[in-house]
Amino acid sequence: MSDKKINVAMIGQGFMGRSHSNAWSQVNKFFDPPINSVLHTVYGMAAEKPNIFAEKWGWLHSSTDWESLVKSPEVGLVDIVTPNFMHSPPAKAAVAAGKPCSCEKPISATLTEAREMAEAAAKSKVDTFVWFVYRRAPAVAFAHQLVKQGAIGEIRHIRAVYLQDWADESVPFAWRFKKELAGSGSHGDLNAHIVDMTRFVAGLEIDTVCGAVAETFVKKRKIIEQDSGGGIVTDEKMRYMKEDAGSAKLGDVTVDDAVLFLVKYNNGAVGSYEAARQATGNQNYNGFEINGTKGSIKFNFEDMNHLQFYDATRPREIQGWTTIMCTHGGSHPYVANYWPDAHLIGYEHGFTSMAYDILLKLAGKTPTVPLPDFNDAYQTQRVLEAALVAANEKRWVKLDEIK
Amino acid sequence: MSDKKINVAMIGQGFMGRSHSNAWSQVNKFFDPPINSVLHTVYGMAAEKPNIFAEKWGWLHSSTDWESLVKSPEVGLVDIVTPNFMHSPPAKAAVAAGKPCSCEKPISATLTEAREMAEAAAKSKVDTFVWFVYRRAPAVAFAHQLVKQGAIGEIRHIRAVYLQDWADESVPFAWRFKKELAGSGSHGDLNAHIVDMTRFVAGLEIDTVCGAVAETFVKKRKIIEQDSGGGIVTDEKMRYMKEDAGSAKLGDVTVDDAVLFLVKYNNGAVGSYEAARQATGNQNYNGFEINGTKGSIKFNFEDMNHLQFYDATRPREIQGWTTIMCTHGGSHPYVANYWPDAHLIGYEHGFTSMAYDILLKLAGKTPTVPLPDFNDAYQTQRVLEAALVAANEKRWVKLDEIK
Amino acid sequence: MSDKKINVAMIGQGFMGRSHSNAWSQVNKFFDPPINSVLHTVYGMAAEKPNIFAEKWGWLHSSTDWESLVKSPEVGLVDIVTPNFMHSPPAKAAVAAGKPCSCEKPISATLTEAREMAEAAAKSKVDTFVWFVYRRAPAVAFAHQLVKQGAIGEIRHIRAVYLQDWADESVPFAWRFKKELAGSGSHGDLNAHIVDMTRFVAGLEIDTVCGAVAETFVKKRKIIEQDSGGGIVTDEKMRYMKEDAGSAKLGDVTVDDAVLFLVKYNNGAVGSYEAARQATGNQNYNGFEINGTKGSIKFNFEDMNHLQFYDATRPREIQGWTTIMCTHGGSHPYVANYWPDAHLIGYEHGFTSMAYDILLKLAGKTPTVPLPDFNDAYQTQRVLEAALVAANEKRWVKLDEIK
Amino acid sequence: MSDKKINVAMIGQGFMGRSHSNAWSQVNKFFDPPINSVLHTVYGMAAEKPNIFAEKWGWLHSSTDWESLVKSPEVGLVDIVTPNFMHSPPAKAAVAAGKPCSCEKPISATLTEAREMAEAAAKSKVDTFVWFVYRRAPAVAFAHQLVKQGAIGEIRHIRAVYLQDWADESVPFAWRFKKELAGSGSHGDLNAHIVDMTRFVAGLEIDTVCGAVAETFVKKRKIIEQDSGGGIVTDEKMRYMKEDAGSAKLGDVTVDDAVLFLVKYNNGAVGSYEAARQATGNQNYNGFEINGTKGSIKFNFEDMNHLQFYDATRPREIQGWTTIMCTHGGSHPYVANYWPDAHLIGYEHGFTSMAYDILLKLAGKTPTVPLPDFNDAYQTQRVLEAALVAANEKRWVKLDEIK
Repeated sequence: MSDKKINVAMIGQGFMGRSHSNAWSQVNKFFDPPINSVLHTVYGMAAEKPNIFAEKWGWLHSSTDWESLVKSPEVGLVDIVTPNFMHSPPAKAAVAAGKPCSCEKPISATLTEAREMAEAAAKSKVDTFVWFVYRRAPAVAFAHQLVKQGAIGEIRHIRAVYLQDWADESVPFAWRFKKELAGSGSHGDLNAHIVDMTRFVAGLEIDTVCGAVAETFVKKRKIIEQDSGGGIVTDEKMRYMKEDAGSAKLGDVTVDDAVLFLVKYNNGAVGSYEAARQATGNQNYNGFEINGTKGSIKFNFEDMNHLQFYDATRPREIQGWTTIMCTHGGSHPYVANYWPDAHLIGYEHGFTSMAYDILLKLAGKTPTVPLPDFNDAYQTQRVLEAALVAANEKRWVKLDEIK
Repeated sequence: MSDKKINVAMIGQGFMGRSHSNAWSQVNKFFDPPINSVLHTVYGMAAEKPNIFAEKWGWLHSSTDWESLVKSPEVGLVDIVTPNFMHSPPAKAAVAAGKPCSCEKPISATLTEAREMAEAAAKSKVDTFVWFVYRRAPAVAFAHQLVKQGAIGEIRHIRAVYLQDWADESVPFAWRFKKELAGSGSHGDLNAHIVDMTRFVAGLEIDTVCGAVAETFVKKRKIIEQDSGGGIVTDEKMRYMKEDAGSAKLGDVTVDDAVLFLVKYNNGAVGSYEAARQATGNQNYNGFEINGTKGSIKFNFEDMNHLQFYDATRPREIQGWTTIMCTHGGSHPYVANYWPDAHLIGYEHGFTSMAYDILLKLAGKTPTVPLPDFNDAYQTQRVLEAALVAANEKRWVKLDEIK
Repeated sequence: MSDKKINVAMIGQGFMGRSHSNAWSQVNKFFDPPINSVLHTVYGMAAEKPNIFAEKWGWLHSSTDWESLVKSPEVGLVDIVTPNFMHSPPAKAAVAAGKPCSCEKPISATLTEAREMAEAAAKSKVDTFVWFVYRRAPAVAFAHQLVKQGAIGEIRHIRAVYLQDWADESVPFAWRFKKELAGSGSHGDLNAHIVDMTRFVAGLEIDTVCGAVAETFVKKRKIIEQDSGGGIVTDEKMRYMKEDAGSAKLGDVTVDDAVLFLVKYNNGAVGSYEAARQATGNQNYNGFEINGTKGSIKFNFEDMNHLQFYDATRPREIQGWTTIMCTHGGSHPYVANYWPDAHLIGYEHGFTSMAYDILLKLAGKTPTVPLPDFNDAYQTQRVLEAALVAANEKRWVKLDEIK
Repeated sequence: MSDKKINVAMIGQGFMGRSHSNAWSQVNKFFDPPINSVLHTVYGMAAEKPNIFAEKWGWLHSSTDWESLVKSPEVGLVDIVTPNFMHSPPAKAAVAAGKPCSCEKPISATLTEAREMAEAAAKSKVDTFVWFVYRRAPAVAFAHQLVKQGAIGEIRHIRAVYLQDWADESVPFAWRFKKELAGSGSHGDLNAHIVDMTRFVAGLEIDTVCGAVAETFVKKRKIIEQDSGGGIVTDEKMRYMKEDAGSAKLGDVTVDDAVLFLVKYNNGAVGSYEAARQATGNQNYNGFEINGTKGSIKFNFEDMNHLQFYDATRPREIQGWTTIMCTHGGSHPYVANYWPDAHLIGYEHGFTSMAYDILLKLAGKTPTVPLPDFNDAYQTQRVLEAALVAANEKRWVKLDEIK
């Protein structure tokens, strides 16, 4: 075990706070990082009782003052897991203070903030990271390697969807349905992931959005009684809570339920993207298919340990889709650090593997699988913005138009 | 067995001629139609030697003069299987002569012809039929029934793709790559099917095309030596023939390899369509997924005997995608006429089942599964045209604009 | 088209009679056999009205006297599709008369009959054939070729099951439940298929049955009113008929519902077999998995157009089960004779393809895919008998013990 | 968080030591156990350097003297993860000292030891536990609940296999291939799991083993150079190490590569079991299928988050296998303690969930999902022994014969 250490300050808690706490703790056990992470301080609003969270998840300290925290000389890395509209202030403060900063996705609620964050990072030259963790699912990281090696030839088609089905009429009003807090609906929540994932796997940039459509199917939702502790309806509560018969107040949904768009890439390939929250039967279908001149790959996070690969260079009679269980320690990324071959890993391991790569980078090394930074996330936000313009103005939009 | 008979005249032969010959012959064995079909006369150009085809497939006569044939008093039904650009003349002649007419899809190479055919049919009041045979795959017909019964609730999303992968660079030039002969590429060949199939299954009409993109990846293809017998490079030959090293002449491909478009339906649902010929690994992936408020269905012709159904009204803990093998004689359409339960049927049975439904209709009865007529096919052509306009003009197109 | 012809006499009708009639008719259209089959005469008991069957299915003549028929100088091939206990008499008569004979499986209700039939065939030297049609599913025939080429190396494991689920308590008594008529239950009906199929695909012989168990779950079944026409409850009726409340009579089921057995092969591999009729959810799961030192194959008739292949000689990181759609005319057996690539075929095509291979053989040619004869079927019957002895005597049984 | 604590002493380290360390640490974070586990002391041989393991995995102390450790008054729970032949001594010592004891599976290398352990536990009345962790995969635990609720009716068939493919010829000699150290090969390693899992899910006991066969395909394996640190070839090393060209010594494999057996259950159902290490393409196929009169269930650990359920009480036309993603916090066992719905979990979570249930039991509460104790494991060992006797003596064996 390395005797170098870095103190992490985590801004926010909630569901993502748990994922990150787990990662910063597990990384030292399952990997052998050149610098060990220390769960130093977690920030939360007083009403969220960050001290309780700290005790549960093993943080040494808690704080209710993020502005001081991100500047503290003890802190070596600022990790941001607040709601989207609260990413930019601490991120910019951390970067300004010369601290490396890792931030949840989408990096901001607005394109302007994203651009400012990317610019601030470029100016300060600190390392920045954005938690597009699906890049580190072994099957996705391996897909990236296959494409890079030329295994599918020149890419012609990309189809990417991120489909969920939790947002039916019975789900009450919450921050996720409010534009001021969430930035957007499924678009920022889900399309952000598949735009990043396909950029990463295919190695292509989107040149033009060739039409888009956004829709909000449920335009009003019931406002339920708020809980006492700060009035925040968390994700988990929202998903399980059902309509309260006594409640009569309705809130206006100001974000999308679904956004679809078509694209052309810089190599001439064509593609489609879709995010949806009411795609019944698809609980977490975060998937892509990429067709090239020599082969194809297919992935879906509901079956995250497997990658589908079609190798069109094999003899024709034995061609077919091969289901690769990406759990071979000897060859698939990250796997050797967890369990023996063919013992599946889950959602959380993407965070642990990314925590390792961040520690590698902070130690001056280059991770095998590329890490997304603020600029990557800004490029993804530009694509999302182009899609919104295309939908609003009912026309094609060149990416060059979007700054 | 009925002692009523109807003489069928088939205009054209080729691959579709075989499918139809088989259907007109098998229908009397596997079904008990109120009128039996008689394979009376097959038409072909002299160079195609229709007499040989007739002998092989059991036609009583052959002819090289379609104009006389479609008017012949002996003929009770004109069935058209020529290439797309040759559908309209015999169809209009048959309808004008007061003959019921069944025609392969797409019904024409141009929208104008399609409109004229629909108008001619409306005027003459004869029965017309278009061979959108996938409606009669038991799984698709059953999907139609499920949706109609309300099993998936109100529809929110449709995703339809028809993906093939036969058209790589090595495939030589042929009629399918020439706009004058084929009308279009994958758009008319493949999107026509999925537009009809989703109209049929979902029972919705497309209101707006919200963006589209068309692409031709391989812009020139080698012209190979023509065979002596009439100079026609048939489908089958085209698919197997590979580049002839000696050949140097290249032909310009004037049709699309892929067309994608987004839509809004008349009920507010959104959808996407894609046709492609270079989607490696997808040999005949003719599929759709439809998500409703109460459930979803999914189908793919590569697994044509099965339908996926997600019933969101079941207790949550046992919800999931159910793979229904649509081979139960007691409940799934058409199945009882073929083999015992759970004995799969194939591609050709859609034709036989449609032949039966045509014979039913000609006997004045109403088939359980609705049959598409010239007007249906015209509506489908309007959607395809709207998509082309949207792609060319880089904007949304309301269906109302297209006549 | 060949101008040589052979007159077929079919002994029996029923479900198998339809399958065979279809095959003898379709073979001349889809293939180009060196000798064309003529549907000459169909035999049935008077009560079965073979003349009606003949008219429907295109037989030139019908007969109610099989003994004369099998000797008729006009007949070139005797094809037997009667219930199991009625196979042996016409088969032996045909062979004795020097006629080639094709017979449905299992070739007999008793091992003695099977041995006698094999001996008779050996003595007369006529060609004999047994309709183990699953050998001619393209995926199965291709599996045979893969194994023969060494693609999976030395075989270590075979797992074969034929699972159905039609025989729940509500199914009434019928000939299939009576030992005197059926010979056995699922054992002869289903295990016969998978024993033949694995012998064919793996190219191994069973050396020892290492334990077996047979079970009849439903020991009595209701006897329903017999229909007037001869008192035979046909397969199809049986499957749909449900208990008649008025009926009180019960029949004793004297055949098995399930038979499982373990084996060692002549190369040292081990295997298991299971036939079942109450394996809920498995409607026609006729499948096998074979593991070798270099790879594995997997097949299931519910998905009959696909073969699963695992190639362990590929680089480890891209190893996985490949789903091969066995519909490539250029390489997969029989496919080119039906439809273009990737257009699925069904249950009945195995019969048509086998009819072609029989005609080839009768013309003195060797089919690419080996045809099973009476001796093959006898070897399969020996295995089934060994399993019954093992179950009854609760011990291992060497195949050498069974004559 | 509870302020009660229990000190765990873990006997052994290795791969299972990592799994258990992780579980004892994670359980306090993801669950809210009535007693918190403390990673107190890990035991290892001096050569294994348990102090390094302790530091890495967060154990407060390490020890090289297990005999004192299991008696230490500070220790509240003894957890055993040594190789199979080393389970019995510390387990009996712990139980004798009145300590609750949890032990890895199979609980012993011999049946005698297993019986003694069960008897010792019964006598001392302490809580004992055996780490059959697959019971706690949410899909398996849910399958148990479905069967218990009668969802599949009366059980008729069970098919269970645990297939792996790591043991080809290139794998060198190691403790797992030596009977004295491992007890048996695939039988104890793999069949132990599926016997426990099917007992648990089906709620049936095996009455008779109706034949069995055991085989060792690779009878000699190369002995490779031992590493300096204690001479133990660990699992992980074994799996990756390939033959050393310089080595010439061969070791005799004295355990099985594969064991298959057939059974009858106490309710009349029949079943089959198979363990194999050379079933190419099956890396960790730990699966079962259970058919009942009202439905069926199917599971495979390579796809551990999903359960297949066939509900034969639904209308026939929508019957089919339903793939249930067992990740719904509101209804599937254990899930709510990890991540939001539809975020997959992996191999290790079974250990964490079992750690929680152990802590519940030690606090006097009853876990929802039954926990296996030493007696359960002894019953499983009796079945394995019966299978060995059946294979050796080539006959059926009643379970009553095995004590």
